[in-house]
Amino acid sequence: MNAFDFLTKDRIRPSGEGVTMMLDKGMGPNMVEDFLEISGNYVDLAKFGWGTSAVHERELIKYKIDTYISNNVVPYPGGTLFEQAYITNKFNEFLKEAQELGFGAIEISDGTVDISAVERSDIIGMVKDAGFMVLTEVGKKDPAKDHLLSPGDRVKLVEQDLESGADKVIIEAREGGKDLGIYNGKGEVKEEDMQILIDALDVNQLIWEAPQKNQQTYMILKFGPNVNLGNIAPEEVTALETMRRGLRGDTLGKVSF
Amino acid sequence: MNAFDFLTKDRIRPSGEGVTMMLDKGMGPNMVEDFLEISGNYVDLAKFGWGTSAVHERELIKYKIDTYISNNVVPYPGGTLFEQAYITNKFNEFLKEAQELGFGAIEISDGTVDISAVERSDIIGMVKDAGFMVLTEVGKKDPAKDHLLSPGDRVKLVEQDLESGADKVIIEAREGGKDLGIYNGKGEVKEEDMQILIDALDVNQLIWEAPQKNQQTYMILKFGPNVNLGNIAPEEVTALETMRRGLRGDTLGKVSF
Amino acid sequence: MNAFDFLTKDRIRPSGEGVTMMLDKGMGPNMVEDFLEISGNYVDLAKFGWGTSAVHERELIKYKIDTYISNNVVPYPGGTLFEQAYITNKFNEFLKEAQELGFGAIEISDGTVDISAVERSDIIGMVKDAGFMVLTEVGKKDPAKDHLLSPGDRVKLVEQDLESGADKVIIEAREGGKDLGIYNGKGEVKEEDMQILIDALDVNQLIWEAPQKNQQTYMILKFGPNVNLGNIAPEEVTALETMRRGLRGDTLGKVSF
Repeated sequence: MNAFDFLTKDRIRPSGEGVTMMLDKGMGPNMVEDFLEISGNYVDLAKFGWGTSAVHERELIKYKIDTYISNNVVPYPGGTLFEQAYITNKFNEFLKEAQELGFGAIEISDGTVDISAVERSDIIGMVKDAGFMVLTEVGKKDPAKDHLLSPGDRVKLVEQDLESGADKVIIEAREGGKDLGIYNGKGEVKEEDMQILIDALDVNQLIWEAPQKNQQTYMILKFGPNVNLGNIAPEEVTALETMRRGLRGDTLGKVSF
Repeated sequence: MNAFDFLTKDRIRPSGEGVTMMLDKGMGPNMVEDFLEISGNYVDLAKFGWGTSAVHERELIKYKIDTYISNNVVPYPGGTLFEQAYITNKFNEFLKEAQELGFGAIEISDGTVDISAVERSDIIGMVKDAGFMVLTEVGKKDPAKDHLLSPGDRVKLVEQDLESGADKVIIEAREGGKDLGIYNGKGEVKEEDMQILIDALDVNQLIWEAPQKNQQTYMILKFGPNVNLGNIAPEEVTALETMRRGLRGDTLGKVSF
Repeated sequence: MNAFDFLTKDRIRPSGEGVTMMLDKGMGPNMVEDFLEISGNYVDLAKFGWGTSAVHERELIKYKIDTYISNNVVPYPGGTLFEQAYITNKFNEFLKEAQELGFGAIEISDGTVDISAVERSDIIGMVKDAGFMVLTEVGKKDPAKDHLLSPGDRVKLVEQDLESGADKVIIEAREGGKDLGIYNGKGEVKEEDMQILIDALDVNQLIWEAPQKNQQTYMILKFGPNVNLGNIAPEEVTALETMRRGLRGDTLGKVSF
């Protein structure tokens, strides 16, 4: 039972909605346990950011993965690690290692490298066949390259990934949340661009990377408390849950669930 | 005994001065203990930010409260949780639960909701009668609404709260410290506005929310090392203590205590 | 063995190159241990920022020092603590206490106080004779004062310190990394200023304070993965190692080691 349980209620979440994806960029094992003890109920996916898994000891990574899984959080390696495997022709070894370590999902992205549409679709299929949850990401990590993608391009890429079998598609914003995808250089939502995406797509199949508080507030007020959000810093997970439930000034009295 | 104890001296603090109020926005239980072991002497009040207490398990909240209290830190739930109780007509249950959990102070605010002056005064009295330290807060959480309060309005609100029995009045700046109260959109102090407040009020009865380093430096240089400061991030508590004592470049040779 | 070890290789580091200096501004003892368990291999120097050591218990500081040393990390007190000792005429006590506590290096700086060139050289010699690694720092902490130093002045100061026996010279940027030394008010590198430094000096003898990610990326792309970087926040140590190795989008395919 929670403290002050009469001041809120459990957030009812239709399957696949209200997802919180957290960014673990190298937390120590004790910090993960301590964090999950208090906030574990409010995280669904834990991304081991970009290639961080590859600089940590195998046994520690396994230990962290086990800790997440025993708290019902699905851990997965960042898309950049997949990209590194792809350009070094080690995709099969990558997939095997991810399986042995116990990761529950794989992210397929082309944030830095180029991958043809056909190949991307094949890869999604292979990851799915291997038994993983498949997350894909749309967007480039370099703002100059990302700006070449129109909102219409992004819609098409999302649709292709979903057709290929992706479980969710992540809209790229990186750890910073600026000058990429739906955000301008100040981190504000480019409303016209976003409108094109949401007119064409089912918002429940997307995960918006929204590392900044103003972005999280915007999404909750626009789509409701069960919008799927990603790249949440561990220390912001509790704060996000309170915003989803109207327990912070920004959303108090403005959400229902 | 501290390391290098010959390079500083204990900060002598008149009663009720030099207060540091820290913002706990969901720390895990082990992190609280580890933090207090090294920095516990430099925290007086620990705010469980806004409604965060209500999404964590009762037993964990009790454990954290006990940990704070055994380190002589007074824990209290954020004002937004009181506001949520107020608008849902559950103030009495709120007060009872806070007592059962062991919180030592209560914050009365109207950052998001509206409360009449008479009712606010009554509530302050009730909280005091229930045996809590009473903290109140002046300021709105939405900058557009907050800008409607003149410095003179703020003076009057502070005076009313003190007359009603508040132990300290907090000047709102939120976690961000921008575009609210005495700060402009860049987080700099609006000196003319502040002057109006300090001409009329006893600064020792105020707690300035000052989450940014430049704000903390400004306050220490203006009011001395024993100014009351709030919304300090846990990882900044040690840094703040060194600034109060002139052990950081910003205040070295510029403070006496 | 690391996870996904086939996707990267150990970073080969010529002696004295590729140094990562981390800023510990008051971590708790358990946090230090947890952090070093996962990231300890990627830190060489741990600075107990400015005067923070002097507000923590001697036994705790000793415990933290031992923990760093047993992980092959060299701990040292921030330069401001030396400056405080210098202006209070307690340099000898300072050095003795640092030795008793077990610190492995000492930083000599004049970020806030003024020290003559002759005296600075003498102090460097004394610290070296006492058996410490000697780090010096060039730059002022107040931007107005720091702007009075031309790039040529900085070159000369670095050369003097190296001649006096400094092991490395740190280029000041503070915790913020803005409007000081080689960075402008936005934290971007002032390329012309930097060029003057690197034309005259051996970059391997410098440690660039580079707290911001864009600064770290710039340095790695300009000088390679083994550039010496400082003032890295603990939670960014893993991220920095991945950038050095091309395991993050910013440097993927752009570094060799």
